[in-house]
Amino acid sequence: MNRDAMPNAFRPGAVDLPPREADLVARRQALLGPAYRLFYERPLHIVRGEGVWLYDADGTAYLDAYNNVASLGHCHPRVVDAVARQAGQLATHTRYLHEGVLELAERLLATLPTELGHAMFTCTGSEANDLALRLAFAATGGTGVIVTENAYHGVTMGVAALSPSLGPGVPLGVHVRTVPAPDQDKGADVTFGAAVAAAAADLARHGIRPAALILDTVFSSDGVFTHPTDTLAPAAAAIRAAGGLFIADEVQPGFGRTGEAMWGFLRHGVVPDMVSMGKPMGNGYPVAALALRPELAERFGAGARYFNTFGGNAVAAAAALAVLDTLEAEGLQAHALNVGGQFRADLSALSARDPRLGAVRGAGLFLGVEVLEPESRAPDARMAARIVNGLREARVLISATGPHGHVLKIRPPLVFSDANAAFFLERFESVLAALR
Amino acid sequence: MNRDAMPNAFRPGAVDLPPREADLVARRQALLGPAYRLFYERPLHIVRGEGVWLYDADGTAYLDAYNNVASLGHCHPRVVDAVARQAGQLATHTRYLHEGVLELAERLLATLPTELGHAMFTCTGSEANDLALRLAFAATGGTGVIVTENAYHGVTMGVAALSPSLGPGVPLGVHVRTVPAPDQDKGADVTFGAAVAAAAADLARHGIRPAALILDTVFSSDGVFTHPTDTLAPAAAAIRAAGGLFIADEVQPGFGRTGEAMWGFLRHGVVPDMVSMGKPMGNGYPVAALALRPELAERFGAGARYFNTFGGNAVAAAAALAVLDTLEAEGLQAHALNVGGQFRADLSALSARDPRLGAVRGAGLFLGVEVLEPESRAPDARMAARIVNGLREARVLISATGPHGHVLKIRPPLVFSDANAAFFLERFESVLAALR
Repeated sequence: MNRDAMPNAFRPGAVDLPPREADLVARRQALLGPAYRLFYERPLHIVRGEGVWLYDADGTAYLDAYNNVASLGHCHPRVVDAVARQAGQLATHTRYLHEGVLELAERLLATLPTELGHAMFTCTGSEANDLALRLAFAATGGTGVIVTENAYHGVTMGVAALSPSLGPGVPLGVHVRTVPAPDQDKGADVTFGAAVAAAAADLARHGIRPAALILDTVFSSDGVFTHPTDTLAPAAAAIRAAGGLFIADEVQPGFGRTGEAMWGFLRHGVVPDMVSMGKPMGNGYPVAALALRPELAERFGAGARYFNTFGGNAVAAAAALAVLDTLEAEGLQAHALNVGGQFRADLSALSARDPRLGAVRGAGLFLGVEVLEPESRAPDARMAARIVNGLREARVLISATGPHGHVLKIRPPLVFSDANAAFFLERFESVLAALR
Repeated sequence: MNRDAMPNAFRPGAVDLPPREADLVARRQALLGPAYRLFYERPLHIVRGEGVWLYDADGTAYLDAYNNVASLGHCHPRVVDAVARQAGQLATHTRYLHEGVLELAERLLATLPTELGHAMFTCTGSEANDLALRLAFAATGGTGVIVTENAYHGVTMGVAALSPSLGPGVPLGVHVRTVPAPDQDKGADVTFGAAVAAAAADLARHGIRPAALILDTVFSSDGVFTHPTDTLAPAAAAIRAAGGLFIADEVQPGFGRTGEAMWGFLRHGVVPDMVSMGKPMGNGYPVAALALRPELAERFGAGARYFNTFGGNAVAAAAALAVLDTLEAEGLQAHALNVGGQFRADLSALSARDPRLGAVRGAGLFLGVEVLEPESRAPDARMAARIVNGLREARVLISATGPHGHVLKIRPPLVFSDANAAFFLERFESVLAALR
């Protein structure tokens, strides 16, 4: 399943599609080629979004419990207005002075520990992680990188080489070592910090100086491991003892999604050397960033300048500022905590009644539900895919994740309500019943 | 000068700035760090753009003869409207079916040779070149890359390693070889194709299999070499003979800027294996793409999928379609040819009268003017920087490029008119006179 961690992906020819959608699929294959994948056995043709709802070309509404980019809800008017207004006024880059990018940097840095004093702007989370690596290599003189066993950190050459979740078609770099994600449900014979120390030692004995430990702070692609929250501090200490830096990848957990904190690493009481962020940052507008300790930029900036044509442009800054304003104005972090807490409890109750479900993990509105063989309690990716596709037919959108593809990944826009959760649970129960 | 190819960059503390701008500079240094550079000895505080004009906070207008992102003119209403409309409707990704990305792929591919049958979408030109390399490595089994001596192909780790213009602070990869850009003004003892063949042979004797030759088809950062137009075909043949691919980097020359063709490589009568594009593609909206021979995607797609969260999203597609529509509706390629041709002739006439100016190169609205020591005819980066800063004081915006930083780079929005050119020439003459 690691071969392609999309157990629910569309396979051409596997199902009959209506003529319009069949035509779109054929055009996609002809135009975009085989590297592009569609969600679901019966792909969705989405034409409109509003709040937690996506609408297909026939006007059918789907409850979106998966898209974290539209974290404020699809097409939030405050962000749309900010983008339209700024795009009509100025859309230039960071080689002129502009208030927007500075206000954004100030606002972002105010949400982070004071040690993180600089912000740098990119367009995508991949670019932010790629830049973090360039800075880490420059600052440490090393190239060794430690990630978790099924990590995903992006699609540039530099970060794809440390993203084992992309499968064997994308080999890891020789400078990369992996450690198991800290899993509260498994008896582990080493602590996470000790595993990082061992990986750093293995790099060193191959003559590779450790540069960085980079971790998604909720371990999304490893299967969503939000707890325990005492694992990152010893891991950060271990990489620092080996001369490397700790990079928190907040592209998925960031911007309040975990409910308990603006950033996932804050739940662990640790201060990273760098923090990357992206996806929900512009609620759909392409904007991403890296926050870092100033001394890292000093060393990089002495030898290299950084210019990203669109990164930190005036419109990107306006979009991201509108997102920060709206998160605050609508109290979405607290909302995610409240709604997500009850939702998780309800999912746990359901799991206790259904032997096909296992651990329910998560924080705020980032949730993972294991799907297991009822007898062996082994991961059941096939059933997970049937549930994901069954929910799609029942008009509820989620996906599955983890190295075995057996963890249902539930990650709705933060405006997801108790009523949305009740709707989800009702459909989930129906799908589970139908799959008996 | 290669150390930092921005001869005209602001140096903190070098000039007195008004209080508001001094404050912005101080906040930038504190917030963004030293890797960020500002244009000009006296940085500009730009707050509004319209057509070829940029306006500072005091309302002063500057003739923009440099920003090629806003190729249709700053804040073109057709693109602003398309972005606002689509952002209000849907902004999701390519894992659902959507008409926009397919229409965009069809429209783009229709401007390219039929051999280039697939389009893949990213957010930045850096990401497009980075993806091109990943595809080239997968398709050839090699890792060797050939670029020109002062090439720039982007800021990700993968493409920064083959961008010598970033200076010695960013070392080239061990798998990279450079060739001199083809310069019609220099007597060269080897042809460009022979230089590529020699570089490929040098890779091979180091045990590195050649994967790609990647070239900006107007050699922007090498100093703008638009002629002769018979150099790319032998270079492409040479890399192919060595088992590698030819990638045309159209991020700067593309979308009609050269006047003679939609894409720079078309002027050379060669068909690349891949074509990357970016900057002006969304007239300010972050969108970029890679066009490629389908067989390359087959090999990559068999082992790896590609997903870029924002690449090819519905708003990006709407922005890029509006750009293609506007380029056509306003006849901007032909306009660039006409205005650019006369502008180049007028600059050549001025150069003939002023011993500080040398060759005037270019095609359409991509122009380079050499600045030379009057006696020795050696590159004069100091005078080039004085001209760039003098023009900025005279409210005309350009920059300088090339390994010696002595080539004035003139690259205005394509809506630049004869009257704008006349304004430019008048200011240019005044600045030259004042610097005598």
